Amino acid sequence: VKVGGVPYRSVWREGDRVAIVDQTLLPFEFSVARLDTLGQAAEAIRSMRVRGAPLIGATAAYGLVLAMREDASDAGLSAAARELLATRPTAVNLRWAVERMRARLSPLRADAREAAAWAEADAIAEEDVDLNRAIARHGLPLLREVAARKQRVNVLTHCNAGWLAAVDGGTALAPIYLAHDQGLDIHVWVDETRPRNQGLLTAWELAGHGVPNTLVADNAGGHLMQRGEVDLVIVGADRVSARGDVCNKIGTYLKALAARDCGVPFYAAVPGPTIDWNADDALRDIPIEQRDGTEVREVSGRLDGRRVRVGIGDPAMAVSNPAFDVTPARLVTGLITDRGVVPATAEGLSALHGENVA
Amino acid sequence: VKVGGVPYRSVWREGDRVAIVDQTLLPFEFSVARLDTLGQAAEAIRSMRVRGAPLIGATAAYGLVLAMREDASDAGLSAAARELLATRPTAVNLRWAVERMRARLSPLRADAREAAAWAEADAIAEEDVDLNRAIARHGLPLLREVAARKQRVNVLTHCNAGWLAAVDGGTALAPIYLAHDQGLDIHVWVDETRPRNQGLLTAWELAGHGVPNTLVADNAGGHLMQRGEVDLVIVGADRVSARGDVCNKIGTYLKALAARDCGVPFYAAVPGPTIDWNADDALRDIPIEQRDGTEVREVSGRLDGRRVRVGIGDPAMAVSNPAFDVTPARLVTGLITDRGVVPATAEGLSALHGENVA
Repeated sequence: VKVGGVPYRSVWREGDRVAIVDQTLLPFEFSVARLDTLGQAAEAIRSMRVRGAPLIGATAAYGLVLAMREDASDAGLSAAARELLATRPTAVNLRWAVERMRARLSPLRADAREAAAWAEADAIAEEDVDLNRAIARHGLPLLREVAARKQRVNVLTHCNAGWLAAVDGGTALAPIYLAHDQGLDIHVWVDETRPRNQGLLTAWELAGHGVPNTLVADNAGGHLMQRGEVDLVIVGADRVSARGDVCNKIGTYLKALAARDCGVPFYAAVPGPTIDWNADDALRDIPIEQRDGTEVREVSGRLDGRRVRVGIGDPAMAVSNPAFDVTPARLVTGLITDRGVVPATAEGLSALHGENVA
Repeated sequence: VKVGGVPYRSVWREGDRVAIVDQTLLPFEFSVARLDTLGQAAEAIRSMRVRGAPLIGATAAYGLVLAMREDASDAGLSAAARELLATRPTAVNLRWAVERMRARLSPLRADAREAAAWAEADAIAEEDVDLNRAIARHGLPLLREVAARKQRVNVLTHCNAGWLAAVDGGTALAPIYLAHDQGLDIHVWVDETRPRNQGLLTAWELAGHGVPNTLVADNAGGHLMQRGEVDLVIVGADRVSARGDVCNKIGTYLKALAARDCGVPFYAAVPGPTIDWNADDALRDIPIEQRDGTEVREVSGRLDGRRVRVGIGDPAMAVSNPAFDVTPARLVTGLITDRGVVPATAEGLSALHGENVA
């Protein structure tokens, strides 16, 4: 993607360093940070300087590269994998990337590991971009279908599943960008997505690409769907179970319920590495991250040109801050995968092990 | 209710002035404001210094008193009623109170109107407190029923329907306060309620009364219900149609959907003046207020001890800010009215025209 005319990704290799866009500063400030150590990579994931399931995976892969520079022994590899896996529990791309890196590096001699790690992490990043291109292509017909019967296509999305959440291109937003580029009149309702307000990242991304969008409070989506203002809901996913349950940013389930109640199709965009073949019933099998209550008690904003965090209530008040919820497969119209749009069922997903399905 | 040991209501007569708690300063600052003119009363309602359907009604009644001091002619009465009715379109208590005042004052000579207006507005305020006491009594058995089978009763509420939203006592919170006073172990999940964050008023109220409560983002309620963490949802209402559709703060519909999906009972607390006997299908018949986008673009908070409003995104971004939504009667387990708990149906509600039903 281009920002101010300059091509960017959300994570990239810069010589022997790793560069990221520091997303905790957005949408106020576009700033690139460099990661030189495993510790910095783990911190970037934990503090959500990088976030979004695919990007967490790619950053973890690069984190293992940095770890190999520090200690390429078997013990060093294990410890680094452990440290990265402990950063965030829900997005399965993290585990997928770490396991892929370990499988590649473990058989090698220690002194061959750093070079191989760079190559493998680069491959993970490149493949992620390809997966998202495929998701864009497969999702496009869903938008074209709406455009065939009405002027403007209104999509509602929750959280940020754009290029900032992936290496480039995005998952949920990928078909939207493609549709816009192909001249469809497409407008996006953007959920604010408290407590971290990732909706502001989405609004920033979409505006940067020229896609008309409107920010709404997380409470508004049901009302919009009741009034016929939403043609389609498309969200990303942090982990999808083998039977098609979608674990995604907290609040997604509420939108899926409203979509079902109002007859609005509800899709999740899901690259292969987001599927957890070991999870079946997501409510039972997928751990939900509980984050610090400060994220709810405080809000990031801009005051007199500077970025500040303000308290919105009593600092002593009790807060609960689950970061994800589960949308049961029964509420999901379909999964837009890199292999095609499939039903959110064990059968639909199992096809992804085989040939291209669409 | 007592604040710092001193008894308060949300609106009261103070000699020949009207006093209110300025709710735009809460939860940071508890401050009393005085209203001397119709214009001040209208502004207080419009800017949400006072909010909550019952309190809007009572404040409008007092606003007409102040108007009678300025111009007690028929033209003055009509103009004042028009000005107040234009402040906020959704809560029907406003119309109810204004019409009741007009019916009382219209037949009188102009010079008798001010005194009669004070008496009628005082009566409306007193009656509101009585209605809420009745709601507390009728709602209590619902909480006792849960307490009979488990230690702690977990209630989820949206927005603020406590004493701050009524003259005193509250609607949705009234049974909760009574249950707590009677020794039940009751805990409240408090939705933040973006964009105006009335959940922080609720958390402040509950804490002041010693009721354990936990603030959550609006996105979290579905997740909590999926996990069995909510025994009961109780919300207030801004207008209930004659067939039992509940128009309430934006986002209520999403919680009702989750409650239905998870088998959690969903109740609205509804004093008589909140029922609009002229509305049937709420989606068709009840106007939904669209408020300024600034409420979404900015957040009130506290920074270094002072109250500030911070921008959370691009000031130029498009925002939609509907203030209410409609929960269809089919999703409502029951209405806790001042006459008893009734089904959310035309038959259930019609009983309220007659004798006490519970």
